[in-house]
Amino acid sequence: MSGSGSGEGEADRVASFNAFRSRMNDRILAEDNQVIRRFFSLDTQTYRAGALDVKTKELLGLVASMVLRCDDCIAYHVSQCREVGVNRDEFFEAFSVALVVGGSIVIPHLRRAVDFLDKLESASSAAPGAPHSHD
Amino acid sequence: MSGSGSGEGEADRVASFNAFRSRMNDRILAEDNQVIRRFFSLDTQTYRAGALDVKTKELLGLVASMVLRCDDCIAYHVSQCREVGVNRDEFFEAFSVALVVGGSIVIPHLRRAVDFLDKLESASSAAPGAPHSHD
Amino acid sequence: MSGSGSGEGEADRVASFNAFRSRMNDRILAEDNQVIRRFFSLDTQTYRAGALDVKTKELLGLVASMVLRCDDCIAYHVSQCREVGVNRDEFFEAFSVALVVGGSIVIPHLRRAVDFLDKLESASSAAPGAPHSHD
Amino acid sequence: MSGSGSGEGEADRVASFNAFRSRMNDRILAEDNQVIRRFFSLDTQTYRAGALDVKTKELLGLVASMVLRCDDCIAYHVSQCREVGVNRDEFFEAFSVALVVGGSIVIPHLRRAVDFLDKLESASSAAPGAPHSHD
Amino acid sequence: MSGSGSGEGEADRVASFNAFRSRMNDRILAEDNQVIRRFFSLDTQTYRAGALDVKTKELLGLVASMVLRCDDCIAYHVSQCREVGVNRDEFFEAFSVALVVGGSIVIPHLRRAVDFLDKLESASSAAPGAPHSHD
Amino acid sequence: MSGSGSGEGEADRVASFNAFRSRMNDRILAEDNQVIRRFFSLDTQTYRAGALDVKTKELLGLVASMVLRCDDCIAYHVSQCREVGVNRDEFFEAFSVALVVGGSIVIPHLRRAVDFLDKLESASSAAPGAPHSHD
Repeated sequence: MSGSGSGEGEADRVASFNAFRSRMNDRILAEDNQVIRRFFSLDTQTYRAGALDVKTKELLGLVASMVLRCDDCIAYHVSQCREVGVNRDEFFEAFSVALVVGGSIVIPHLRRAVDFLDKLESASSAAPGAPHSHD
Repeated sequence: MSGSGSGEGEADRVASFNAFRSRMNDRILAEDNQVIRRFFSLDTQTYRAGALDVKTKELLGLVASMVLRCDDCIAYHVSQCREVGVNRDEFFEAFSVALVVGGSIVIPHLRRAVDFLDKLESASSAAPGAPHSHD
Repeated sequence: MSGSGSGEGEADRVASFNAFRSRMNDRILAEDNQVIRRFFSLDTQTYRAGALDVKTKELLGLVASMVLRCDDCIAYHVSQCREVGVNRDEFFEAFSVALVVGGSIVIPHLRRAVDFLDKLESASSAAPGAPHSHD
Repeated sequence: MSGSGSGEGEADRVASFNAFRSRMNDRILAEDNQVIRRFFSLDTQTYRAGALDVKTKELLGLVASMVLRCDDCIAYHVSQCREVGVNRDEFFEAFSVALVVGGSIVIPHLRRAVDFLDKLESASSAAPGAPHSHD
Repeated sequence: MSGSGSGEGEADRVASFNAFRSRMNDRILAEDNQVIRRFFSLDTQTYRAGALDVKTKELLGLVASMVLRCDDCIAYHVSQCREVGVNRDEFFEAFSVALVVGGSIVIPHLRRAVDFLDKLESASSAAPGAPHSHD
Repeated sequence: MSGSGSGEGEADRVASFNAFRSRMNDRILAEDNQVIRRFFSLDTQTYRAGALDVKTKELLGLVASMVLRCDDCIAYHVSQCREVGVNRDEFFEAFSVALVVGGSIVIPHLRRAVDFLDKLESASSAAPGAPHSHD
């Protein structure tokens, strides 16, 4: 629980993030630019299971996003990590690697990452029966 | 068209960005700091036509801003590029260079760049007769 | 004075920044992660007086935050610098170093730094008797 | 002319850079990793003529590399720009955009960029008949 | 095998990297600066097994170092990853995440990472009986 | 003392850094590019005494260079700081701020900064009578 907000309010904020992301991805992919389309497709392929499993790869994406300090990328990978079963202790250990590698400049992004994780958790507990699934 | 918003609402958002930018520039230049004033003047001089034309230089500024991931700088150069006649296909090719050089971490900024470009276009189509001119 | 806002409104915006910062720090430190806790403690220790005085160290933190372009870190160090007596001319000289080292990409963060400084000043002038103290 | 070096010595240094680049690219592409292979192919596709011509795209790649401060990427794009006819004045205008956007932190990379450009020029003048061609 | 070099030559280059690293760490820790000493100690603690195992944490450190483009950090984590059993396919999948997140600007660092990995492998195959151990 | 090297050898390495820097600055300023020339002049002006003294400004330049991880900029500001009397304890406190703000990714640059400082000190002790002066 992130304090003041109700579960529904939190879910709304997560939903609004996802809606913008989804709407603009559609706009971008509607353009006739093959390099950008191929990049988006490659980006998806990158996190598929291979020699490393999906969970490890999503954690790699999360820590890379944190040290590069991109809030949207962090939110996306926090969400993906949660889907594939990363638990709270594992999240904070991944956060700790990003914090030590990237320094105190990472702290504001860490705050927002934890806030987003809190929102995801309170959204899913407000919607029992569909805890963290894409369906 | 950016979907939900009316032309007027889009114009407002662009106007609000420009108003803050303009108000704070005035605040900064009102200070008695010659280094900062000279930097601002140099920044303006940088994009004047020379061996390279203004359009090329504005595209350079745009791609530099995208790989450095600064939304305000991106918005500013998207706006300037539009003034000097960069068309949508050219924008997306410049975006594609920034995306490939800078990686997926650029994607959230690409989304906001396209959103801003959409807003500029819908604002100018809502104000026919003054499509995208400084005059 | 930052133009449109009343002193109370400005104070609110500063207060809201501090409230989120404080709430999320509590969330983070409540976790059982010793690396993160030790990092936060080390971060505090870094700015204590030693061979260099607190004012110099806070200015170092401010310029580091500006060239790394982190608005929250900038706001935090602007606030700390003000507490330890950095005056407006000194602020702008520190800003000028950050601007020249970091380039025009720093300008949007400079605008927000000056806006935040304006808000701090108008908040403290709206609350005479407690100008800028932690007590 | 870069001062002390003979044309042959300069050519050697450029050749050594290209040899390492080429040898390691072969090593990397020999691996059975489709994401990396697709990325390399996409990288090549990015600079092909489209809505923007090759010269503009190579200049975009050069300035992006300079503000991100990657000497090898800078050397590569300086070399490519020269192949497609960017002249010395155009190079320095592109450099000036990178310098103003990226700040004084770019200066050491600017020095090495100019040194590399000097070497390319003295290498090609030492090999008349094949001034700056891939054939 | 990295091509031209003998096993002994490669081992020397790795040894020279380690010798400078070790000598300068001693210099730094000999200073009476508690913040720096505590940071070094925290850095070591970060990669210890906890909710995540050492291998995952070293991979996180590797990918963070690659997207931040620090060759020495990359070399260090490549070496650590190898110690804890990361195999070549796993290395290249981690590299692929760094490449897609960080973009083509990562490529020169990828080349040097692969070169360093090649050197480690050829050094250890030149010294059978102690393949890749700290003892 | 940096261990193995003689005073003369260390002085040579510092001299070689300065010689390249000086030679390339001359090359760059010989070009007819006013933006670049004005930037170089502005860069010099930035560190002149004003509301903040030269020592504080050079320390700001040093820490900015460290968190942005530019070895040449670090070497330059270490050298300048030494000229204006920054002592070893003050250097390490400035380093500690850069390390905590910028994270472990700064460590390789810290090693080279300390190595360069050692070289400067052993060079000046090998040339008594002219300890650290520009004349």
